[in-house]
Amino acid sequence: MDKKMLTIDLNSHVLLDKAERDGVETIYDRKLGFKAQCGFGLQGSCCRICGMGPCRITPKTPRGLCGADEHTIVGRNFARMVAGGTAAHSDHARDIAHTLLLSSRDGNYQVKDEAKLIALAKDWDVETEDRDIYDIAHEVAEIALMEFGKPFGVSRFLKSAPVQRQQVWKDANIEPRAIDREIATIMHSTHVGCTADIDSLIHLSLRTSLSDGWCGSMMGTRLSDILFGTPTPRETEANLGVLEQNKVNIILHGHEPSLSEMIVLASEDPELVALAKEQGADGINLAGMCCTGNEVTMRHGVRIAGDFHQQELAIITGAVEAMIVDVQCIFPALARVADCYHTKFITTSPKAKITGSTYIEFKEEEAFDNAKQIVREAILNFKNRDKSKVLIPELKSTGTVGYSVEAVVGQLDRVVNSHIDPAGTVKPLVDCLTSGVLRGAAGVVGCNNARVVSNESHITVIKELIKNDIIVVATGCAAQAAAKFGLMDKSARKYAGKGLATVCELVDIPPVLHLGSCVDISRILDVVSACAKFADMDMCDLPVVGVAPEWMSEKAVAIGTYVVASGIDTYLGIMPPVGGSAKTVQILTEGLKDIVGATFTVNENPQELAATIISDIEKKRVHFEALLEEKMSAPAEA
Amino acid sequence: MDKKMLTIDLNSHVLLDKAERDGVETIYDRKLGFKAQCGFGLQGSCCRICGMGPCRITPKTPRGLCGADEHTIVGRNFARMVAGGTAAHSDHARDIAHTLLLSSRDGNYQVKDEAKLIALAKDWDVETEDRDIYDIAHEVAEIALMEFGKPFGVSRFLKSAPVQRQQVWKDANIEPRAIDREIATIMHSTHVGCTADIDSLIHLSLRTSLSDGWCGSMMGTRLSDILFGTPTPRETEANLGVLEQNKVNIILHGHEPSLSEMIVLASEDPELVALAKEQGADGINLAGMCCTGNEVTMRHGVRIAGDFHQQELAIITGAVEAMIVDVQCIFPALARVADCYHTKFITTSPKAKITGSTYIEFKEEEAFDNAKQIVREAILNFKNRDKSKVLIPELKSTGTVGYSVEAVVGQLDRVVNSHIDPAGTVKPLVDCLTSGVLRGAAGVVGCNNARVVSNESHITVIKELIKNDIIVVATGCAAQAAAKFGLMDKSARKYAGKGLATVCELVDIPPVLHLGSCVDISRILDVVSACAKFADMDMCDLPVVGVAPEWMSEKAVAIGTYVVASGIDTYLGIMPPVGGSAKTVQILTEGLKDIVGATFTVNENPQELAATIISDIEKKRVHFEALLEEKMSAPAEA
Repeated sequence: MDKKMLTIDLNSHVLLDKAERDGVETIYDRKLGFKAQCGFGLQGSCCRICGMGPCRITPKTPRGLCGADEHTIVGRNFARMVAGGTAAHSDHARDIAHTLLLSSRDGNYQVKDEAKLIALAKDWDVETEDRDIYDIAHEVAEIALMEFGKPFGVSRFLKSAPVQRQQVWKDANIEPRAIDREIATIMHSTHVGCTADIDSLIHLSLRTSLSDGWCGSMMGTRLSDILFGTPTPRETEANLGVLEQNKVNIILHGHEPSLSEMIVLASEDPELVALAKEQGADGINLAGMCCTGNEVTMRHGVRIAGDFHQQELAIITGAVEAMIVDVQCIFPALARVADCYHTKFITTSPKAKITGSTYIEFKEEEAFDNAKQIVREAILNFKNRDKSKVLIPELKSTGTVGYSVEAVVGQLDRVVNSHIDPAGTVKPLVDCLTSGVLRGAAGVVGCNNARVVSNESHITVIKELIKNDIIVVATGCAAQAAAKFGLMDKSARKYAGKGLATVCELVDIPPVLHLGSCVDISRILDVVSACAKFADMDMCDLPVVGVAPEWMSEKAVAIGTYVVASGIDTYLGIMPPVGGSAKTVQILTEGLKDIVGATFTVNENPQELAATIISDIEKKRVHFEALLEEKMSAPAEA
Repeated sequence: MDKKMLTIDLNSHVLLDKAERDGVETIYDRKLGFKAQCGFGLQGSCCRICGMGPCRITPKTPRGLCGADEHTIVGRNFARMVAGGTAAHSDHARDIAHTLLLSSRDGNYQVKDEAKLIALAKDWDVETEDRDIYDIAHEVAEIALMEFGKPFGVSRFLKSAPVQRQQVWKDANIEPRAIDREIATIMHSTHVGCTADIDSLIHLSLRTSLSDGWCGSMMGTRLSDILFGTPTPRETEANLGVLEQNKVNIILHGHEPSLSEMIVLASEDPELVALAKEQGADGINLAGMCCTGNEVTMRHGVRIAGDFHQQELAIITGAVEAMIVDVQCIFPALARVADCYHTKFITTSPKAKITGSTYIEFKEEEAFDNAKQIVREAILNFKNRDKSKVLIPELKSTGTVGYSVEAVVGQLDRVVNSHIDPAGTVKPLVDCLTSGVLRGAAGVVGCNNARVVSNESHITVIKELIKNDIIVVATGCAAQAAAKFGLMDKSARKYAGKGLATVCELVDIPPVLHLGSCVDISRILDVVSACAKFADMDMCDLPVVGVAPEWMSEKAVAIGTYVVASGIDTYLGIMPPVGGSAKTVQILTEGLKDIVGATFTVNENPQELAATIISDIEKKRVHFEALLEEKMSAPAEA
């Protein structure tokens, strides 16, 4: 099989040929090297939770040594994926809260969005009158840090959901307590000899996932906006063609903005720019990958080099002086790839040390100095670039990014009839959904997964949805796929159905909106919550879905679970490792409807997946329109 | 293969025959059903941490899709076992802290050991003068709860270690922060694309394990002693022969004493005793299994029905009215076994619901009422016992249990020359070690594991050690094995070498001391710490070892790791799933020496394991004696 069959990205094709010539191994080689994956692992029916195992479920051995059946084994493995994902996402927020605690008027980090800070402080009953903004910031940061470990109470963010949804959580007893406690509870409950009941395992998973969605992730986004500014629409470009021949190319890869924001600043430092010129470069070119890329493109328009599956290929261009990473989704393989070129592979987090990398620990306390040191390393490495080894592929797409909730509302204000309606609400969006001009909305999110062709599912699904007047909001590597394929350009409304195209034109947006990084899926929750509140409905009543066509990480499992727990039907393009338990499949795809009003649907064929989504949105519209009708005809409340 | 080859317990042999006749499946049947276990799982070289996998390391596929090599994969899996174990252990302590918070003079729970509470309060800088003991208790409980989630600082218990050991932890940067945070950090750091460096993964594991050993477990023990009393020596009996023909037999199985203490009270309730008699029984007979069994035998002398591998067999006697469980090490299989008899299998914890059980949620707030309800269920079930199905095996052994650190010191006081030395210290024990009358001390702990013959390794190792004048302290199912085989009886000094036998006689103790449940391994840390402080040495300088001959659970992995991190060499009778990475094996068995002064040794042959321990203790004595010499000859400090 030709490796190039494994991705639809044409830049990737060019670089896979180069990798072959250079004798460098990539994920696509490793993919072809794996003949078949273990069926037990794929089905989730292998238990390694105690030292008596592993135990694998077969018709002849239907129970593990302790007596755990396939439902218990699959359910425990699933719950642990949720715990892993919640831990990763939320730890990100913890670091941002720590950064907020360090913020000061003269320090490395300042408060950029005071209004958002004040709003959050008020939500949390923090005194805001006549106080220094940094005193408020520090108190908010301390409260935020306590959300991880407070011994009593539930997440402070729950009350930002519609009251109907809050009631669902209360009734189902899935209001999450402190984030770390939920993670510890799952790890305990899935220990040998604990929970052996699939309903209970799913229940624990729902609650823990909500501590991610409605606490960790939401905190990550809010505090990042407070510290680094709430994104506004701006132009950018995407794909490996953004690397430059004559500049020091630095790739920012990973997740947390604390480091990358400082690198952005450092890259504009006159001294360092001068140093780059001294070294014979025309300047410094930053480009982003994965969610760090999303963070800095949302706030600074830093161009997107590529997605999860292109991290090795970026180095294989031979034109990258430094790949700077913090945490999550970083291939350990980068160390070996970087060894084949002059690229410095710089790790910075004690939570993600990688053998073979250059480790420069990033400490928020000395952030700008650390960032300058890192950028300096990159600049001084420019002279080591071997021009004969350089191949920057040509393709790149333009697009508009930066659609925070506030930015979306700002765009919507363009179509508000200011004689009748106030500005600053989601009314125009709700009106479009109500009238059917937009049939629905889909959040398309997630990773790349070597089990399917890179980008193919993302692009297929997104194109089908917008063609059918379903507006798409995207985050993560899904957003990067959309950007690379031009779907975040305003001109992409040509691919949209007539209703969506009209909306795009009037509101001046592309049909696919970049909402940010994975933690920014909380922005999707916020916008859905705002629409539901506006329509006085629960979130599950809206013709809105979540889609993860190429999900890969445990974070995605946590996300999918909290999105469903938020009442939003979620569609997966990759089967999670639950197929070994018919009960688990039943609960996730049907049973959850009764508990949280939404379910998962899985289809590994992207065309079919898209068709199902479109058909299901139409079905949801029937319910939605009936509910609207009911509300219209009900006598107005006194 | 005959199932009876899989255990050396003769009661188990009798009941395995009965199980066969009754057509009931046990762990031994399942063990024989598994032809071969997956080599990748056994070696730890299968990665299921993301949805691209599973990826299995072979010579042809030496790296996972992301590029993770065998060291990364094995190390991540190992770290997650430590996280799972720490979560389980420490969550137990959280529940006890919650119970302490609920304690009141007239409530379900009282403070039983005020002196221990006051001591802990003083350690934690809680005001104790002129305060109601319950005010102190509640403040201590709140501080304890914060140890799970405090955003700043390290474990409050670290300072109870010798200063030399504290310095080791500081130098290695492994002082644990809040317990739940350490668990979350491991889950994050082992997420796809994070830590890919075996040294770092082991480092994270050490730190997290210490949050178990020197926080969660230690808290569990201290607070349990405060609430339920510090154990004192008392007589008991062990093995399934403790079940009674004419009484309502209730088995307490699981881990946390909050429930079992209440059941003990309820079983003495005159109304319920009368009800039992009304139902035709002679009374109520409580018996314990696993660590709940250890908790109630330590404090009340409640007899030990058996260990982890005997939980099904207890029900198979046909004489058990109720098997009452809370969390951890409970076979899901019990539901099916109980279905074959009249036994009620009662689960009580939201953290361990089990399909097919009767769920009666235990709430500390209404503890005694819940306990009475549960005991009543058992009593009312007596009439359903089918006498034709009853077979209580005959064997049981006598023993003395209840050796808290205070109890050990109390025994040692018997040999103190009160003209010269103060009472209440570990001096006599240190003197025995110094003089060589005792060659050393071993903590023998852990589970049963179906990968080896039940109890054989425990008994072989313990007998060899005591024969060679190594005193044994035991917890968990290892302690239950020792008790079942008569090694906790004072008469067992006949198996001991001359030095140990003499000590046993003078101090009036058995050669194997029962220190309690798994969390009570903190008692072992306390006693080793006390000896080290007395000798002005680090813990790693003493001729003391940890041994887990038949370990099985993730808790055991966390324990082994914190015991090594405490400077105590640890010997395993079961190979952990790390064989797939030569580097991991090297670090665990050699490299850790340089970091924490102790390592792991693995040998699945118990005779060889014992021989190695004995020889290593003699080697440690050379160092120990040289150090003593040095200290004796050094000029006294000014």
